[in-house]
Amino acid sequence: MENKNVRTIGVLTSGGDAPGMNAAIRSVVRVGSYYGLKVFGVRRGYNGLINGELEEMNARSVSEILQRGGTILQTARCLEFKEEAGVKKAVEIAKVFGLDGLVVVGGDGSFRGARDLCAAGLPTIALPGTIDNDISCSEYTVGYDTCLNTVKDAVDKIRDTAQSHERCSIIEVMGRAAGYIAIQAGIACGAEVILVPERKWSFDEDVLRPILESKSRGRKHSIIIVAEGIGGVIEMAKEIEEKTGIESRATILGHVQRGGSPTVRDRVVASEMGCKAVELLLEGKQNRIVCMQQHEIVDVDIEEGLAMKKELPQNLVDLAKKLTV
Amino acid sequence: MENKNVRTIGVLTSGGDAPGMNAAIRSVVRVGSYYGLKVFGVRRGYNGLINGELEEMNARSVSEILQRGGTILQTARCLEFKEEAGVKKAVEIAKVFGLDGLVVVGGDGSFRGARDLCAAGLPTIALPGTIDNDISCSEYTVGYDTCLNTVKDAVDKIRDTAQSHERCSIIEVMGRAAGYIAIQAGIACGAEVILVPERKWSFDEDVLRPILESKSRGRKHSIIIVAEGIGGVIEMAKEIEEKTGIESRATILGHVQRGGSPTVRDRVVASEMGCKAVELLLEGKQNRIVCMQQHEIVDVDIEEGLAMKKELPQNLVDLAKKLTV
Amino acid sequence: MENKNVRTIGVLTSGGDAPGMNAAIRSVVRVGSYYGLKVFGVRRGYNGLINGELEEMNARSVSEILQRGGTILQTARCLEFKEEAGVKKAVEIAKVFGLDGLVVVGGDGSFRGARDLCAAGLPTIALPGTIDNDISCSEYTVGYDTCLNTVKDAVDKIRDTAQSHERCSIIEVMGRAAGYIAIQAGIACGAEVILVPERKWSFDEDVLRPILESKSRGRKHSIIIVAEGIGGVIEMAKEIEEKTGIESRATILGHVQRGGSPTVRDRVVASEMGCKAVELLLEGKQNRIVCMQQHEIVDVDIEEGLAMKKELPQNLVDLAKKLTV
Amino acid sequence: MENKNVRTIGVLTSGGDAPGMNAAIRSVVRVGSYYGLKVFGVRRGYNGLINGELEEMNARSVSEILQRGGTILQTARCLEFKEEAGVKKAVEIAKVFGLDGLVVVGGDGSFRGARDLCAAGLPTIALPGTIDNDISCSEYTVGYDTCLNTVKDAVDKIRDTAQSHERCSIIEVMGRAAGYIAIQAGIACGAEVILVPERKWSFDEDVLRPILESKSRGRKHSIIIVAEGIGGVIEMAKEIEEKTGIESRATILGHVQRGGSPTVRDRVVASEMGCKAVELLLEGKQNRIVCMQQHEIVDVDIEEGLAMKKELPQNLVDLAKKLTV
Repeated sequence: MENKNVRTIGVLTSGGDAPGMNAAIRSVVRVGSYYGLKVFGVRRGYNGLINGELEEMNARSVSEILQRGGTILQTARCLEFKEEAGVKKAVEIAKVFGLDGLVVVGGDGSFRGARDLCAAGLPTIALPGTIDNDISCSEYTVGYDTCLNTVKDAVDKIRDTAQSHERCSIIEVMGRAAGYIAIQAGIACGAEVILVPERKWSFDEDVLRPILESKSRGRKHSIIIVAEGIGGVIEMAKEIEEKTGIESRATILGHVQRGGSPTVRDRVVASEMGCKAVELLLEGKQNRIVCMQQHEIVDVDIEEGLAMKKELPQNLVDLAKKLTV
Repeated sequence: MENKNVRTIGVLTSGGDAPGMNAAIRSVVRVGSYYGLKVFGVRRGYNGLINGELEEMNARSVSEILQRGGTILQTARCLEFKEEAGVKKAVEIAKVFGLDGLVVVGGDGSFRGARDLCAAGLPTIALPGTIDNDISCSEYTVGYDTCLNTVKDAVDKIRDTAQSHERCSIIEVMGRAAGYIAIQAGIACGAEVILVPERKWSFDEDVLRPILESKSRGRKHSIIIVAEGIGGVIEMAKEIEEKTGIESRATILGHVQRGGSPTVRDRVVASEMGCKAVELLLEGKQNRIVCMQQHEIVDVDIEEGLAMKKELPQNLVDLAKKLTV
Repeated sequence: MENKNVRTIGVLTSGGDAPGMNAAIRSVVRVGSYYGLKVFGVRRGYNGLINGELEEMNARSVSEILQRGGTILQTARCLEFKEEAGVKKAVEIAKVFGLDGLVVVGGDGSFRGARDLCAAGLPTIALPGTIDNDISCSEYTVGYDTCLNTVKDAVDKIRDTAQSHERCSIIEVMGRAAGYIAIQAGIACGAEVILVPERKWSFDEDVLRPILESKSRGRKHSIIIVAEGIGGVIEMAKEIEEKTGIESRATILGHVQRGGSPTVRDRVVASEMGCKAVELLLEGKQNRIVCMQQHEIVDVDIEEGLAMKKELPQNLVDLAKKLTV
Repeated sequence: MENKNVRTIGVLTSGGDAPGMNAAIRSVVRVGSYYGLKVFGVRRGYNGLINGELEEMNARSVSEILQRGGTILQTARCLEFKEEAGVKKAVEIAKVFGLDGLVVVGGDGSFRGARDLCAAGLPTIALPGTIDNDISCSEYTVGYDTCLNTVKDAVDKIRDTAQSHERCSIIEVMGRAAGYIAIQAGIACGAEVILVPERKWSFDEDVLRPILESKSRGRKHSIIIVAEGIGGVIEMAKEIEEKTGIESRATILGHVQRGGSPTVRDRVVASEMGCKAVELLLEGKQNRIVCMQQHEIVDVDIEEGLAMKKELPQNLVDLAKKLTV
């Protein structure tokens, strides 16, 4: 694969960091090198592009980063980039460094930036890197699996103490608008109650009743997983304690969910997607999101991808119910 | 969902154990209970069926097993079951306990047993539980993800010492006929060389050359992942040391790869597949393998499933090469 | 070792649960069996003693609990036991079951209960099981090491994201009156700031200054470890962000610190201490705390032990400072 | 603390690598900087000293290495250094770089080198860094705790599969002449049999009998931990299988035991010892081993330290027996 119009590319990470972003960077750099490209790493997301924080990378500069959490290129929000002037400035800097293409790793906010760059003349490919798995066009986003396993490890630990004290433990996990983390982690940890922003719920029906039923079956400890978008876990703990007499405690897992050495799945998918992104640029494509559909790595138009709607799988919601008989 | 002909079912684990088998057992028991079924656990695979080692299980008996490795029902090879008389005896015992259906969790050897049970009159559903991911009809088998992450953790540790001593480390991972573990773990760990049984290889071309090239680029340590079916890692270490002067060490990971608390993926997929298996029995189906195809949980005929051929994904083999520039 | 007056003993866990309590229970049961004793497990701490929740245990009943977090005997606070009548009732129940001695695993609150039991006629030995390491007479308490490593794992993850976003991360760890967890975890995680209840601190001097100094040396991310007894981490994050312009986030680790499979140290020390406790009873001793002093397992009088004062090691406080140049 | 004769020091790691060596390096560099010293890192152990592979380090160069396994300075065996000429050459290089002192992190072989350097005119302090915990004068060596926990994680996994298949699993752990790893890991994992080089053993009495007794009590799976110095685990598995009929499998854990992110204990003790080493040099001392005695960080003369004899603690050997009733 060779393309005389694509000699030099860049890669940046943007938005919230996710485990596996380094694996994606490494893949872009190495696959780029494999095809004879010059690859620049851009620091601090779109900020770095605007400010010219680029440095050339090679196989050695991404050595030993595969297993590291976070992103060695760092990431940041960039208000300036939301203005047309910012995008224009970024494209000018890209020209200074001779970039013929760019790979942006991030979430849907970052994808809008990628689209704007394409419109302004810099061929850009978006790669879904976010722990939330909330990219509509892709079955999977880099970072999701590591995040889920971090949550699982934490909840397994909390269950130890919940059992020992016969307590009810309420755990808030990430997901402001999306319940993907909550539903998978909830099933994986055998949670008695799972609350997600995509479904209506009532305290009496969905929280109190299963706990009281569980209690009447002789089991006093329980685990409740609540997505961030629902919130209010500290108050919930108080209310449960008042109404059931069962000691209740809330934990907000927080930023621990963003870090950690990536799992195999995140490392491999990130590597595959990074490779795909480079090859799309070499094929002369742009304005595409690399994504996983039906277990295959494919690509869709950014605009179309952003317009898609992703449903929380109803079968998992049902499964969770069947498993807590 | 209700089926007057299916009131009582059994579940057993067979063949090599795999992390997530307990999640599958739990799912069969709980989803069975959810649908009002009586569920028996069968001990020690087909042996237990022949010998009548069954005990009734309920939601409580599978409490707190989700996070445990291995299988609480245990597993064993069963020579007797390979004979027609053994299968007949098993079906008789199943009648004694009133089983209207059975879920068998295991690998392809176990699936042949499931088929024979169906033929002899016991409706049986097979569920792929094996760390090798070598079931042709399914993109995924329960236990694979945990195994991969165990290998990854081990190789990440070995890399620490390989780097410190500038050594070449050769690691044998499971997979007698299949290189799925080797290829995914190899990519996830940034192995310089990956040898799988599905591909021809030569020592000079595929082992010696990349190590020498890496050495000439100034990098003396390297990681070689070898599938069990290739073998000979201790001799390989000696030969590399002799021919390159680089100190080389072999590690055979062995049974550590079979154990451990299952990852989120294994817990969730096992739960989904267990649910599907019960629902297939309730639909009056039998002789089916529950499997994952295009990211969905579906089912195929056992005979057809066994006849399929699964290829090692060429794109992963290529990717591994591109990443080791 | 034989003692005709000690034929039957009990074991209970009390106060906050700690990883390794199961290893201590197992050791009391197995070492008791080794010496020919009958051993009863008492459920739910002193509550279970008052209410007669005892069951005989043997080598098999403690099989496979060594690796499990929490306590299989469960634990609870017991207000009734703080009254003389409660203690008297407990001793009567102990007589009903023929207990000649009792081992109590817990913290200093539990030790006062052990002392009261001795005074009321039940020979009791106390074993320090608490994640806080705040037992004055002992260099080590069961659960401390596992807790420290849980904190370390969490902070290592948070650092990934702090680095990627160039944030200041403030992490609250357990320790209401004691900074042992904070100081060791702080050193182990390379925290820029460590705040413990045993030392006075000022926001300007001890928090703001090191962060600003670090920033002026070109490093924007930092980790601050705060013991629970200090509190106020959410407000602290806001204040740091306002005064330095560095994005700041707080995480309260919470109950995750109490759980998890115990480390080797906790398993081994718990086993040693459980053995010592049984042997003290066999020697006819009572009212003793098993403890670690100068790296040896010894015992001290409960009253004397409770009266001792444990200092936060000044050398660790100094070390933390020297390491953050 | 100031010493006009000590302005510049070096640090190197030697012998087998151990987790926590990086924490020791970081501590020497940072504490050195804290006292205003210039600190050089020496690459590849004594080799690097002979060949002049030194580079100046500062607080930033040891940033983010605390959590990494292995040693960033690398390590190697050095035959040349065993000759007087080698030592002389090393001291000359040290003069070239103006070293007033050196800290050597390693095992007893490395300590002999440190002693020779002192004799040849370079004040040197030895710091015990070896997973084997076989340094006679010290209760603890950096790397031991991480190694133990790696072994524990592996054995916990192997037990899952041993239980599921009712197998006997024999696991060889490191320790050619010393059984410290085997005895602690054996107790921590509830091994039925532990074989160490310091104790005589017979196959019939110490291996076969406990397995047969365990089998006759209805328990077919068992775990046997064997120190490397005993060896022969593959043959042992065969013999057990032949004589008991219990399927038996051997695993040689190998180099995985050397790597991994260090535990809290290894990070903290390494930090304390590194600090102590620098302060000893500043006090004008040399030819000392930093060590832990009675839970305190102290120092002893290298010659005296090497002459001491460390016994395998008999109480642990006895404890292991009491716990396997």
